[in-house]
Amino acid sequence: MIINGKHQNTIWVDQTNSDIIYTFDQRYFPHETRIVSLKTIDEAAEAIKSMVVRGAPLIGVTAAYGMYLAALRYSGAGLYEEMDEAALFLNETRPTAVNLRWAIDQQLTVIKNNPNLSHKELAQVLLTNAEKLKQEDINTCSAIGDYGLSVIREISQFKGGTEVNILTHCNAGWLACIDWGTATSPIYKAYEAGINIHVWVDETRPRLQGANLTAFELSEHGIPHTVITDNAGGHLMQHGQVDMVIVGTDRVTRTGDVANKIGTYLKALAANDNHIPFYVALPSSTIDWNISNGLTEIPIEMRSANEIHKILGKTKSGELKKVRITPEKSPALNHGFDVTPARLVSALITERGICQATEAGLLGLFPEYLQHELH
Amino acid sequence: MIINGKHQNTIWVDQTNSDIIYTFDQRYFPHETRIVSLKTIDEAAEAIKSMVVRGAPLIGVTAAYGMYLAALRYSGAGLYEEMDEAALFLNETRPTAVNLRWAIDQQLTVIKNNPNLSHKELAQVLLTNAEKLKQEDINTCSAIGDYGLSVIREISQFKGGTEVNILTHCNAGWLACIDWGTATSPIYKAYEAGINIHVWVDETRPRLQGANLTAFELSEHGIPHTVITDNAGGHLMQHGQVDMVIVGTDRVTRTGDVANKIGTYLKALAANDNHIPFYVALPSSTIDWNISNGLTEIPIEMRSANEIHKILGKTKSGELKKVRITPEKSPALNHGFDVTPARLVSALITERGICQATEAGLLGLFPEYLQHELH
Repeated sequence: MIINGKHQNTIWVDQTNSDIIYTFDQRYFPHETRIVSLKTIDEAAEAIKSMVVRGAPLIGVTAAYGMYLAALRYSGAGLYEEMDEAALFLNETRPTAVNLRWAIDQQLTVIKNNPNLSHKELAQVLLTNAEKLKQEDINTCSAIGDYGLSVIREISQFKGGTEVNILTHCNAGWLACIDWGTATSPIYKAYEAGINIHVWVDETRPRLQGANLTAFELSEHGIPHTVITDNAGGHLMQHGQVDMVIVGTDRVTRTGDVANKIGTYLKALAANDNHIPFYVALPSSTIDWNISNGLTEIPIEMRSANEIHKILGKTKSGELKKVRITPEKSPALNHGFDVTPARLVSALITERGICQATEAGLLGLFPEYLQHELH
Repeated sequence: MIINGKHQNTIWVDQTNSDIIYTFDQRYFPHETRIVSLKTIDEAAEAIKSMVVRGAPLIGVTAAYGMYLAALRYSGAGLYEEMDEAALFLNETRPTAVNLRWAIDQQLTVIKNNPNLSHKELAQVLLTNAEKLKQEDINTCSAIGDYGLSVIREISQFKGGTEVNILTHCNAGWLACIDWGTATSPIYKAYEAGINIHVWVDETRPRLQGANLTAFELSEHGIPHTVITDNAGGHLMQHGQVDMVIVGTDRVTRTGDVANKIGTYLKALAANDNHIPFYVALPSSTIDWNISNGLTEIPIEMRSANEIHKILGKTKSGELKKVRITPEKSPALNHGFDVTPARLVSALITERGICQATEAGLLGLFPEYLQHELH
């Protein structure tokens, strides 16, 4: 999609020196556009951990490049054992999103299928596969957009072409992926199809991914949108100002429970109470076929209380400053995600189509998992 | 209650010169304790409008003092017409809280009952009545606390004395009243009764009354509490970490619908979904006996988008700074309140006792309104 009028991806290999991976430091949007380089697995892991990169699909692809960088820089004996270590190391950077594990597993399969290579040869294979995963993510997000577009088009037709109001939480935009986004992909496609849309952007405390990233994305693209507090969505729904909700996810159980940014559950409750459709957009790499109870089985990341205490923004004079909003003696608690039970999800939008948030619904689209045992 | 170890009220008359009213400038808590003086009706109105003072009961009492200041400073002819103007002027400062209108009406009744006074004599009568309203608010809040205490004690006994976790939204604390608070009054009483309690404090964007005021109050009083984002309450409820929710309100319909700070409705939905009792604490001056449909009849204040765009806090070096969090080109929309339908309210806690959030429940406690016609 577009930053400063220019088409971009969120992560790319240096054109003249493939030893360097570039990405945006997403902690500084919308105030500054900073590009950072990743040259080692440590830098890739740190970028994931400190949320230089974030969003389930993007952290997956970043980890895949991290595996490449690990092989590339490795010069000792025991390369294949080292790669197992690298996989474990990257796996531990973030606990909730399952795409991370999925992408690393993809690289481990490539490694297993290519024994006895030198570290440079292995690196090349891993780079090729990382590039493939990246391209697949773009295709997947585009397909999600096409299916989601059909939903928006239907609502638009039902409303006689008047504005379709779409509420989204956090950033499941192209910045969370490589391009298009998951939840935003249908929005971009609808905008390009000339459908009259407007997006309510939940600011998404504590990290403000809505106010900082989704609003930035939509603003750069020229899509009508309005930032609201996380508190406001229910009121808007009660007053007929929301036609649909669409969010991304970090992990979906085989039964359709959805882990997503903290606060998603509250919006799902409000949508349900007001008979507004609540959609979740996801690449199938986000489905965890091993679990069936989201509330008890999905690990929820605990993040620093400082994300609540302190907020980064731009002062009148243009400086970036962090300001503390809580009393010095008050503690804070910061769960990163919550789980929306499948009963509150109207439908899942995947790269293979739209299905009910149930095991039967998911298996209908992904029959290859019919024989997959829970473990 | 307590600031800096000292017992305080939120508003008081100068001890040696009754021409001056003092209050805290609540826009600077918890960072600074600033006291401001109100000497004219214009200053009182501006204090209400700009949220130097806020909270339904406190803005009511402030307006009552404003009527006193209007009479005190008035030197022209047509005093009684001027007081009608003063009432209209103060009434327009904030639209949602009905206590404002109620307190002004109390003063208008006093004016009607005392015709043919000089402006100084009338001022004296209005001052006496403002002081009476202030003392009544303290008594009312204390009574609410006693009834609410019985609820907390029951939960504590049910839990065998283990920690009772209470979630609250915004600030319905003593800073919103004169002393005790409405929603916090049972909390202070429970703490003083030695009950093992802990409070989850919703930060309450956009103005952060939870993070700035409720956390400050509880911190100054030494009550165990934790600040959370407005997004987090649902997750905590899903995981058994909330035993009850208690909030204040700016207006309750005769049928029990509750207008309160934006986001309250979302917490009520989550409490309902997780079978957690959801209480609303209120002085009876908050009941609007004239209306029966909260969603359509309670005016919801629209506030400046800048409250969303910019956040005030303290920098590392101790300065107060406002920082912008949204892209420059992104608009924002800022509804101040939402309405929680009576069906989601477990009970109302008033100064006369606890009742169901229904017309029958309210009339049971306030039978003098049985004959009150809707108009």
